Amino acid sequence: MTAQGLLLVISGPSGAGKGTVCRVLMSRQPQVRYSVSATTRPPRTGEVEGVHYYFKTQEQFEAMIAQDKLIEWAKVYDNYYGTPKEPVMEALRSGRDIILEIDIQGAFQVKEKYPEGVYVFIAPPSLEELRRRIEGRATDATEVIAKRMKAAAGELDQAGKYDYIIVNDTVETAALKLEAIVTAEKCRASRLSSLKPY
Amino acid sequence: MTAQGLLLVISGPSGAGKGTVCRVLMSRQPQVRYSVSATTRPPRTGEVEGVHYYFKTQEQFEAMIAQDKLIEWAKVYDNYYGTPKEPVMEALRSGRDIILEIDIQGAFQVKEKYPEGVYVFIAPPSLEELRRRIEGRATDATEVIAKRMKAAAGELDQAGKYDYIIVNDTVETAALKLEAIVTAEKCRASRLSSLKPY
Repeated sequence: MTAQGLLLVISGPSGAGKGTVCRVLMSRQPQVRYSVSATTRPPRTGEVEGVHYYFKTQEQFEAMIAQDKLIEWAKVYDNYYGTPKEPVMEALRSGRDIILEIDIQGAFQVKEKYPEGVYVFIAPPSLEELRRRIEGRATDATEVIAKRMKAAAGELDQAGKYDYIIVNDTVETAALKLEAIVTAEKCRASRLSSLKPY
Repeated sequence: MTAQGLLLVISGPSGAGKGTVCRVLMSRQPQVRYSVSATTRPPRTGEVEGVHYYFKTQEQFEAMIAQDKLIEWAKVYDNYYGTPKEPVMEALRSGRDIILEIDIQGAFQVKEKYPEGVYVFIAPPSLEELRRRIEGRATDATEVIAKRMKAAAGELDQAGKYDYIIVNDTVETAALKLEAIVTAEKCRASRLSSLKPY
């Protein structure tokens, strides 16, 4: 019998480095994959159905909501985004570990239904360092930076509700911590008991 | 402020390889140390007070029990063995991680008082493999082997009460898992909240 994979729910402020940390983890642990979201926004050039997103019409998406086929969802401006349940459950059953990189509201939605998930908050070393990182992205206008900083402060207040907090001082160290969390959670007696090795 | 160290409570059947796994961990993570036990048995040649044991008279040991100065204790044949509380607490306060390698009864005693400890059960891959390992120790007589095997079966039934179970297939892999547990537990939001980084 294959051990069930882990559902890793990762949140953290924009600029904390979640994506980079997750990619380093996946390069070291090939059984870890991102979940694929569903969205009603139109595909961009090069985006492949089922790889980057599941592309849905508004009617299709609303039917998925009504039929409880999404682990979590949100409407951002005019478009829906969400995580279809079945592909995630299928991957977990086959022993793969799935990352949901979602915001705090989404994470709390998931936690209600999947308390056995592993909830990890990735935090910047400090708000000053976060500002430096966000400002380093030349793309962001002043008002966008101010908005992100305000959101970050609110998000950091919620970090204590996660199972783990990784302070992202350096990507390599943070990724090693995330990898350690994956390894440790697979040794949890509460997960192993379903395998009944003894 | 220094983060509090971890109290690692390690149990497992005789022959499961606890000591070897712990020594590999300590060689990789020098802040991890064994606790030093108190005992009423006489020192053997080369044993140093405060390093191998705290050597106590029976009266001294019973006074420590009466004054609640032991985290756990047991009487084995005519001698007392136990873990003095103060040196362990002092080490944890200064950020060192302390291993208590104790039997299941001792671990349950500790868990009542220190639920924030990390409880790890080290298991053999199978009872057959455990028998091979015990039989490989030429020192043990047949009746001793039978007794250890019976005890092991009883201990394995209790493994699910620990936080983590490490199946010791190979020492190196088991030690990496134990190291991952130490790293992961230091990222636990419940431990970090006392530091209030935000």
